[in-house]
Amino acid sequence: MKKKKKVNAAILIIGNEILSGRTQDKNIAFLTNWLNTNCGITVLEVRIIPDVEKIIVENIKLLSKKFNYVFTTGGIGPTHDDITAQSIAKAFKVKYGYHQEAYNILENYYGKDKFNDGRKKMAKMPLISKLIYNPSSAAPGFITKNILSLPGVPSILNSMIENCKRYLVKGSKVHSDTLNLFTVESNISKQLDKIQKKYKKYVDIGSYPFFRLGKIGVSVVTRSTSKIKLTNVKKDLIKLIKLKKIKILNI
Amino acid sequence: MKKKKKVNAAILIIGNEILSGRTQDKNIAFLTNWLNTNCGITVLEVRIIPDVEKIIVENIKLLSKKFNYVFTTGGIGPTHDDITAQSIAKAFKVKYGYHQEAYNILENYYGKDKFNDGRKKMAKMPLISKLIYNPSSAAPGFITKNILSLPGVPSILNSMIENCKRYLVKGSKVHSDTLNLFTVESNISKQLDKIQKKYKKYVDIGSYPFFRLGKIGVSVVTRSTSKIKLTNVKKDLIKLIKLKKIKILNI
Repeated sequence: MKKKKKVNAAILIIGNEILSGRTQDKNIAFLTNWLNTNCGITVLEVRIIPDVEKIIVENIKLLSKKFNYVFTTGGIGPTHDDITAQSIAKAFKVKYGYHQEAYNILENYYGKDKFNDGRKKMAKMPLISKLIYNPSSAAPGFITKNILSLPGVPSILNSMIENCKRYLVKGSKVHSDTLNLFTVESNISKQLDKIQKKYKKYVDIGSYPFFRLGKIGVSVVTRSTSKIKLTNVKKDLIKLIKLKKIKILNI
Repeated sequence: MKKKKKVNAAILIIGNEILSGRTQDKNIAFLTNWLNTNCGITVLEVRIIPDVEKIIVENIKLLSKKFNYVFTTGGIGPTHDDITAQSIAKAFKVKYGYHQEAYNILENYYGKDKFNDGRKKMAKMPLISKLIYNPSSAAPGFITKNILSLPGVPSILNSMIENCKRYLVKGSKVHSDTLNLFTVESNISKQLDKIQKKYKKYVDIGSYPFFRLGKIGVSVVTRSTSKIKLTNVKKDLIKLIKLKKIKILNI
């Protein structure tokens, strides 16, 4: 089997409404899951920043160098606070203006009579960008170098995500396995540490307390690009669980 | 009235479980709301990063310089993947070890017999730190210079938040007001832009599409530390709404 390379990404959430706590973000979990499951791309950092041009420009410059892909969400609508497209153009010092293909899509969607200035604004973007088609409300997202820009409204973002695929190089999918145990973290922390050290290079082991059915428990989550390594780690974990006489909660 | 200064903060979410999409974050919206409402502190940036020491150290160094306060969540439990405390000690080059007060609290809580190595680990932190008491599960959070470290489990974090207050200088609260309109953004984008420019220094105007009761609408959110300025902006918005004959949705 040809070994796939590791491909990573960052997510840049642009929006005062998330930073103010007014809106509960739903895009982070969706994007990270989708990218891993469908493209084998691992999200290594998420940032949430305000609708301020200087800050968007800084972050685009930095994150585009640091990661294979950057997904931006928000700020591509028709109003004054939608400044993602112009900020990306500034960051890369490329021309910003009406993108002919986007203009045609929007003019066709609204009809010439109703294609007003606000709507026209949604056709403005870096001229070098390629479009990410939007099946639910026409206004396209776009990819500029390694930056993919999507809207902030989760239902629209979700409807567009499949159209990102053509622009993405796939990596190795990260598989994961979870054991939900009726115990406390401190009961297994020493042994977990040993198992993590044994599989250091291949498997990430996470330990997360939970409260369920009135009882305290721990979810032990293992993650690896190798299914075989995951199986080996599980054998060691099962040994530990038997040794400590811990009950497993099947969900 | 004495004018309060602007006080800001960043949130640093430390946790592979959020980055992998396994867990839906609930702490960002809670913290940003609580900080604004109770302390007049505005969150200007959120970052989500993995449980990797080098990355945590880099972010602590950078964010602690850039913002008045930094709230970290996650990574302060008893297992191998809990490395927030040691990373903060490294970032500030301060001594890391058993914090006597934390040690006493935990020993008292668990009893000498059950105070094993995993539990003892939760008493390890920068020795210069002061404690943030934890009424729900004893293991304390801590403040190191301007970094406040809280656990990742939302119910525990929520129970500790009042104990952060004593360490925080309060700023001016940001008030906000929302008008939910049965219209589309492009119908009001031009005028909203004008109103935003008029109140540029005092009021932030955000525009967010929504889908409710089978209809498309726009929430126009205004935010300001001055209630008077908010009232003035609202008058201008109401004029615009009457001019355009837009229906307001009362919620």
